[in-house]
Amino acid sequence: MIQFSGTYTDLYELTMAQVYFFEGLEKNQAVFDYFFRKLPYEGGFAIFCGLEDFLDIIESLSFTKEDLEYLLNIGFKKEFINYLKDFRFKGNVYSCLEGEVVFPSEPILQVQGNLIETQIIETLLLNVLNFETLIATKAARIRLIAKEKVLVDFGLRRAQGPAGYYATRAIMIGGFDSTSNVVAGKDFKIPVTGTMAHSFIQSFEDELTAFRTYARYNPDNCVLLIDTYDTLESGLKNAIIVAKELEKEGHRLKAIRIDSGDLAYLSKECRKRLDKENLSYVKIVVSNQLDEDVIKSLIEQNAPIDIYGVGTKLIVGKPDGALDGVYKLSEVNDVPTIKISNSLSKTTFPAKKQVYRLLNGEDIWVGDVISLREESLESLHIMHHPFDPLKKMQIKEYKKVPLLHKVMENGKRILQKKSIKEISDYSQHQLKQLPDEYKRFINPHIYKVGLSSNLYNLREELIKKYKKS
Amino acid sequence: MIQFSGTYTDLYELTMAQVYFFEGLEKNQAVFDYFFRKLPYEGGFAIFCGLEDFLDIIESLSFTKEDLEYLLNIGFKKEFINYLKDFRFKGNVYSCLEGEVVFPSEPILQVQGNLIETQIIETLLLNVLNFETLIATKAARIRLIAKEKVLVDFGLRRAQGPAGYYATRAIMIGGFDSTSNVVAGKDFKIPVTGTMAHSFIQSFEDELTAFRTYARYNPDNCVLLIDTYDTLESGLKNAIIVAKELEKEGHRLKAIRIDSGDLAYLSKECRKRLDKENLSYVKIVVSNQLDEDVIKSLIEQNAPIDIYGVGTKLIVGKPDGALDGVYKLSEVNDVPTIKISNSLSKTTFPAKKQVYRLLNGEDIWVGDVISLREESLESLHIMHHPFDPLKKMQIKEYKKVPLLHKVMENGKRILQKKSIKEISDYSQHQLKQLPDEYKRFINPHIYKVGLSSNLYNLREELIKKYKKS
Repeated sequence: MIQFSGTYTDLYELTMAQVYFFEGLEKNQAVFDYFFRKLPYEGGFAIFCGLEDFLDIIESLSFTKEDLEYLLNIGFKKEFINYLKDFRFKGNVYSCLEGEVVFPSEPILQVQGNLIETQIIETLLLNVLNFETLIATKAARIRLIAKEKVLVDFGLRRAQGPAGYYATRAIMIGGFDSTSNVVAGKDFKIPVTGTMAHSFIQSFEDELTAFRTYARYNPDNCVLLIDTYDTLESGLKNAIIVAKELEKEGHRLKAIRIDSGDLAYLSKECRKRLDKENLSYVKIVVSNQLDEDVIKSLIEQNAPIDIYGVGTKLIVGKPDGALDGVYKLSEVNDVPTIKISNSLSKTTFPAKKQVYRLLNGEDIWVGDVISLREESLESLHIMHHPFDPLKKMQIKEYKKVPLLHKVMENGKRILQKKSIKEISDYSQHQLKQLPDEYKRFINPHIYKVGLSSNLYNLREELIKKYKKS
Repeated sequence: MIQFSGTYTDLYELTMAQVYFFEGLEKNQAVFDYFFRKLPYEGGFAIFCGLEDFLDIIESLSFTKEDLEYLLNIGFKKEFINYLKDFRFKGNVYSCLEGEVVFPSEPILQVQGNLIETQIIETLLLNVLNFETLIATKAARIRLIAKEKVLVDFGLRRAQGPAGYYATRAIMIGGFDSTSNVVAGKDFKIPVTGTMAHSFIQSFEDELTAFRTYARYNPDNCVLLIDTYDTLESGLKNAIIVAKELEKEGHRLKAIRIDSGDLAYLSKECRKRLDKENLSYVKIVVSNQLDEDVIKSLIEQNAPIDIYGVGTKLIVGKPDGALDGVYKLSEVNDVPTIKISNSLSKTTFPAKKQVYRLLNGEDIWVGDVISLREESLESLHIMHHPFDPLKKMQIKEYKKVPLLHKVMENGKRILQKKSIKEISDYSQHQLKQLPDEYKRFINPHIYKVGLSSNLYNLREELIKKYKKS
């Protein structure tokens, strides 16, 4: 069984923590930024996801007796083990709200605490936030294309093992309607849906008997899988027979499902024949290797599909599979710090920060500006391109909405718990304010993220200082 | 917390099970095959992985009180809930050994039991086996290229959330030497290793102080990360100073680590300068977006690298992200069954089966033949191409080694527990017997998997029968 205890981390976090401990550095106050450098799926935006899970986990994070014995066995020192015995994360967390639309380079979350606690949670933070953000973003892309059609998560069997649990949560936050994943449905209060497998049909002497039997037990929630033997010549015909039998008993066949073959052709044929039989209320569900591109194509072909069951490519976030989010030190004991790199684009931004979303008169987003946390709104006149010294823009006129909120204080979450539905609604609402050109799939417009003059100058100073020494 | 209870499944498994229950079909005996159709990474082989985890989980699988209440709430019937109260998987499992080299179309595992229990475990089986097989195969590919170099898993922070736990296990079975993942190290008894992050260096007034401090606490296990400010001009120089100081105290600097920049160029420069300083014992560790292709290229450039830290691309199994393993019904109550498809290549193989590996006089593998389970070895004269009726080959002369073993009987595992090391050694040993042309990365030779005459004829019969009706 997977435990999110203190050992759910990379060894070096503990090795470093032990040095800090013996050097008496654990009282040093550190600030770390979580951000990513590249948007997933060559897209124009990402949906921040995983915050609630992350807060839940670190709020109760500790080392079990078994953990401590193990660490002693592999060579950690007794005094340090004693320190870990009472370890609790007591820091502060500033974060974008879950479901927020976020962009590269900007701090999505900042952690503030002592050097040891902020270091120990690094791996866990990246593990949870990188993954859920990757998956919520994929789901949001599919929702953008599918518009008001029904979207169902079918991915658990192809998920990366237990990842399927949180993936389903992220998929719902990205905008799906329901899932086949029962345990996620139970724990996250998500609607669950499901029908039948080919093996069900095969378990009966023939397809019609299988359909009739299923309908008998599920008369008002009957979705028949029609492609086990022959979609149009067997499955559809038998489904129509059962639909008429259900009608006689006062019920209505809910839908048919097609899981193979040419989904555009087959859905059109099925729709035509169902309508001819006065079964226009019977919906069409399709599944089989769907993603935003396939669904886009089906919609462009006017395939009369009502419900999409999406699996593999969604639940593992294909083709990316991972988000490259990082966790970088930006301050120690109120002294801003940076990591220099040969390329300016990999040099980190120092200090405690805030991110403001810039809105024009019509509440449309113009860009995000990263400032020092305590800067006054009035001082934000100019936004500098973070990596091109020649580019800057006037931002005085825009409305500025802060994105980072204090969500945890002294290790206790202060952010009110939200339901998946609330988070998902927030996300969809936010996404509406992002202009369409950032939401297209091919070469999306690049959203502007820049630095305030104060932050820009601070970074310049620090670079100069490090280059000198 | 993720629970592998009975609700760790797709809803339709339970919906179907409920119909079986009320129809009195739960006593029907079913046989399901687990197999995949396409090798991951466009490679020539896969490493079967996840068996021990799968057996552990189903051996204790049950529905919790909370599960049952939830199922009642979402509409399942009381009598069925009562049945689930005492649910335990009591079936038999036949399987390839974990770590086995496996190929498309052949049953890697067969489950035998009543219709309900075999259906309920479907999602869980696919979820565990697909994922671990995907990752072990990736790790084995990297091991093939890296030969005797040291390989370390650094992936946890980019893993798909809790997937990192089992991924690390699969990575070790695929042939890695150690991991940074502490909890996996503890639970699976895997060697853990780790050094320092850039943030450690930044937490001190300067790099040399950071190195010295770290060395003081880890004098015999000191790996210094040298690319925080300037790899050659700062990091390497400071590492050399610390190496000499360690020597004076009777210790030896273990290694330096490079995490950015051109790894071929930088490793060569570092090696040269270390050797000039009589520090030829100091090893070079590299990391940063490595996979089998990058490592192959570094080796071809004679980069003097001793240890590779591999992260993102390994732990999520890029670029595939998922293995398309499926679970198909092949028999009900001793009556063989198939799922017909428009393409022969998607038609399933009926009946209880065995797979024999064919070995030539030098114990080199020639192919695998799928037979009926009870067929006598002597009857295996000819192997038929599964999808091309014109292709067959003589196999009489070859030694035949059965791959499927009974590993669980009446719900109790009978396979002896093995350590990760034993499984990994077995896997490496087996892989040696696979000729090189199947192991190359570009257009690998296609390993022959065929059907015995009896199985071939049975399938033909069943296809004819279904086509008629």
